[in-house]
Amino acid sequence: MAVSVDLNSDLGEGFGAWRMGDDALIMDHVTSVNIACGFHAGDPEIMITTVEGALRKGIALGAHPGYPDLAGFGRREMGCTPGEIHAFCLYQVGALSAIARSRGGRLRHVKAHGALYNRGAGDEAAAGAIVRAARDLGEELIIVGPHGSCFEKACREEGLPFAAEAFADRAYTPKGTLVPRSVPGSVIEDPREAASRAVRMVLEGKVTALGGEDLPLRADTICLHGDTPGSAAMAAIVRSSLEKAGVRVLPLGAFLRGAP
Amino acid sequence: MAVSVDLNSDLGEGFGAWRMGDDALIMDHVTSVNIACGFHAGDPEIMITTVEGALRKGIALGAHPGYPDLAGFGRREMGCTPGEIHAFCLYQVGALSAIARSRGGRLRHVKAHGALYNRGAGDEAAAGAIVRAARDLGEELIIVGPHGSCFEKACREEGLPFAAEAFADRAYTPKGTLVPRSVPGSVIEDPREAASRAVRMVLEGKVTALGGEDLPLRADTICLHGDTPGSAAMAAIVRSSLEKAGVRVLPLGAFLRGAP
Amino acid sequence: MAVSVDLNSDLGEGFGAWRMGDDALIMDHVTSVNIACGFHAGDPEIMITTVEGALRKGIALGAHPGYPDLAGFGRREMGCTPGEIHAFCLYQVGALSAIARSRGGRLRHVKAHGALYNRGAGDEAAAGAIVRAARDLGEELIIVGPHGSCFEKACREEGLPFAAEAFADRAYTPKGTLVPRSVPGSVIEDPREAASRAVRMVLEGKVTALGGEDLPLRADTICLHGDTPGSAAMAAIVRSSLEKAGVRVLPLGAFLRGAP
Amino acid sequence: MAVSVDLNSDLGEGFGAWRMGDDALIMDHVTSVNIACGFHAGDPEIMITTVEGALRKGIALGAHPGYPDLAGFGRREMGCTPGEIHAFCLYQVGALSAIARSRGGRLRHVKAHGALYNRGAGDEAAAGAIVRAARDLGEELIIVGPHGSCFEKACREEGLPFAAEAFADRAYTPKGTLVPRSVPGSVIEDPREAASRAVRMVLEGKVTALGGEDLPLRADTICLHGDTPGSAAMAAIVRSSLEKAGVRVLPLGAFLRGAP
Repeated sequence: MAVSVDLNSDLGEGFGAWRMGDDALIMDHVTSVNIACGFHAGDPEIMITTVEGALRKGIALGAHPGYPDLAGFGRREMGCTPGEIHAFCLYQVGALSAIARSRGGRLRHVKAHGALYNRGAGDEAAAGAIVRAARDLGEELIIVGPHGSCFEKACREEGLPFAAEAFADRAYTPKGTLVPRSVPGSVIEDPREAASRAVRMVLEGKVTALGGEDLPLRADTICLHGDTPGSAAMAAIVRSSLEKAGVRVLPLGAFLRGAP
Repeated sequence: MAVSVDLNSDLGEGFGAWRMGDDALIMDHVTSVNIACGFHAGDPEIMITTVEGALRKGIALGAHPGYPDLAGFGRREMGCTPGEIHAFCLYQVGALSAIARSRGGRLRHVKAHGALYNRGAGDEAAAGAIVRAARDLGEELIIVGPHGSCFEKACREEGLPFAAEAFADRAYTPKGTLVPRSVPGSVIEDPREAASRAVRMVLEGKVTALGGEDLPLRADTICLHGDTPGSAAMAAIVRSSLEKAGVRVLPLGAFLRGAP
Repeated sequence: MAVSVDLNSDLGEGFGAWRMGDDALIMDHVTSVNIACGFHAGDPEIMITTVEGALRKGIALGAHPGYPDLAGFGRREMGCTPGEIHAFCLYQVGALSAIARSRGGRLRHVKAHGALYNRGAGDEAAAGAIVRAARDLGEELIIVGPHGSCFEKACREEGLPFAAEAFADRAYTPKGTLVPRSVPGSVIEDPREAASRAVRMVLEGKVTALGGEDLPLRADTICLHGDTPGSAAMAAIVRSSLEKAGVRVLPLGAFLRGAP
Repeated sequence: MAVSVDLNSDLGEGFGAWRMGDDALIMDHVTSVNIACGFHAGDPEIMITTVEGALRKGIALGAHPGYPDLAGFGRREMGCTPGEIHAFCLYQVGALSAIARSRGGRLRHVKAHGALYNRGAGDEAAAGAIVRAARDLGEELIIVGPHGSCFEKACREEGLPFAAEAFADRAYTPKGTLVPRSVPGSVIEDPREAASRAVRMVLEGKVTALGGEDLPLRADTICLHGDTPGSAAMAAIVRSSLEKAGVRVLPLGAFLRGAP
């Protein structure tokens, strides 16, 4: 039986008169999009435009809720309480869900953004708050997070499907976390190397850590960036390499165990 | 057959550490609440708390979307385009709807706030944008606005139920608009006078304008304020006067023609 | 005696992780910069960076205060009161002035941004509020605005130097206002045409209006845009054409009557 | 020779239509005010009003800069970099300084707010960033912070005068830090006990820690709250007790060693 993987990208990250990345270009290569919901980026009109663009291309819609920190692009850990995090996520995902339904679509997944993603990966209470917000919406949403993270545990407890996310173009520590961008070698710039890492993650469930040793790493979905020059080219090479290796590139709902 | 009217109040108008009005007090007297949705006031946690409070008291939930202007409390006309207004309302009402559903409730109506209410009352394109946002949510929401306003016309065109709102404690011009607060006599401070005006609006469909002449004025719902000292006392007197006059005080959904 | 003109551009218009325009490129061609102050664009770090960049190139520093509307980039008329406008401008210009002084520089002028510029051009109370905010700082600031506008009148009344601004790449109505961007022919895209218009404005004090007739138009400073591809090229051609025509391109303080 | 102390309070903590505390009441009892600068609370108009009110009463003006977090009232640690903190403080204090000068006053001190105060107390880089922002303004500002904190160290390094702040109505740990509000006994509610602690801090330089042991604690200025019922009464009792004990209650500039 063929192995499947989803390719996702963070989109709709402009605000007002500002834009970030080339959404149209990256949408040609992914099967899922994570749409900013207005707290760290995105605004109602950009959210509508992004939903419409993704629906036209048949891409699965996901919410990308973040901390309420436009100036910091949601990358600063703000120490919000689990109650605040739950409320923020319910609000943001609810708003995007309404926009998706108004355009004839529906949300399929939720992936926290930036500092909120990192917080939830290692903090059980925060992950639980995010997962419960998704569950409260009653739309059978898939939660995306790192393999083995607190998101995975919270999904088991709350009964929501979980999708493990991996990064093709980022180096991993022996513990399975991303090597910080400040460390040399943390970002894999060669598209062919990124592509071969993606193929190995999906087919073997392994990645070579920065120190050289092999690391088990499940990848239900691989994150591709759209905000740098060359990112669309890398996305194209990752996707074609996966397909050449016999991997089916599909949205999570088409293959994830437990997905609605 | 008994005549019915709804009593509504604007609630959840705090933000972060700030509060406005005494929501608990006014909730004892109204049948519907209009909950701020985060753009001019309100934040996700306050929205959850307000929804929970209203559900405990069996009060009908409504959305109170406004312009994105926290500093101006949504009272400044910002000249947003109909496209922006549609997107703002879809986002805000969608977020509140998700919160309501997560707490076992559902939204019943939408009433624009402040400058957006005034804009929609007289601007067909703006009223249409607000009404279409409500329609896009697919939840059979009632639109609240002034009798004879562009909201009423837009509701006829879009097929949504419309509820005419009147103010018991505000003077009207001969044209049926509110006398600006800067004009002496614009605010009726005597609770008994406000109550007798409310009774006449409901039973006779009339109000005495500032010049002294009678004005036709339909009132499906009467707005009561909760943000000043004495406002709860006035609300209590208006309600008991209506009930003594044989008017049934009920949420809109219980009597409005065309309401779901 | 040689005629002089200043060339200005709006800079520092990013926010947080977002950028707009290529500030470094346009700074090679202008003698003054108008720096966004955080309300419609700009943030404290961007303001510091922009001040430092301008000081390194010896360009005169100016403040570009706007309405408090990040989402609308300060382009929406918000109907703020003169009291609010005075307070907004005092706050924003004061913050930028402190940053300039902390870097060894000082502010030379104030030019309102977007909707606030348009408001002040035709509204005496708004222009007065902006001019008084500049005067309140006690730093002998020059006010930049359209020739014959309410800014000019307010400067006479408050005793501040006024600099008339013109646009080389925009068409004018016979009344001397800019033709709205929505009208065909409103933007002059040919750099040589823009340059010859700039030369005529400065040497003859005239411009050809959209209808074909000549219009008197004083130009102490000409605004050059930095936010579109080709804008640096146009700026270079405008500047070199002015210099070839014998016009001295200098900051306002070097030649404006009444400037400190 | 008589011993002196300053009494300070945090004021101007409203935003837009929201208010917090009763500024007029507490101003009758203090000699210095710390004015919110728009990032966690305060807005330009409130800042002007607060400056004017303090100047009328002859109270020393200080800036109260905070993190850019209106929704969290600046109480959330946001992990901003020292560069961001420096820029935030320069911007906020610069804006307030301009407002103070425009009203014929001048700033005397800077006290960081909330999470930024706590951050600076224990984080050398953050304290250095705040102190350098104050120094960059070139206005000989006094820095207020806890006795023995990183603020004190940074002031020595940068050559700025430092004022040690103590709290009359808060319990201290044996290490000299405030007992968190969640701990029973952390807040001293009896005005007479608070007053006698204040007198002892000033005259003996000691306070009894929560465990019962004596703690050395210098108090150049004592913080009084204005945001709870009864806080003005406590302020009055603290002040009169100090004066009865022979302590002179004066603004910092009148007695602090090294103050301008």
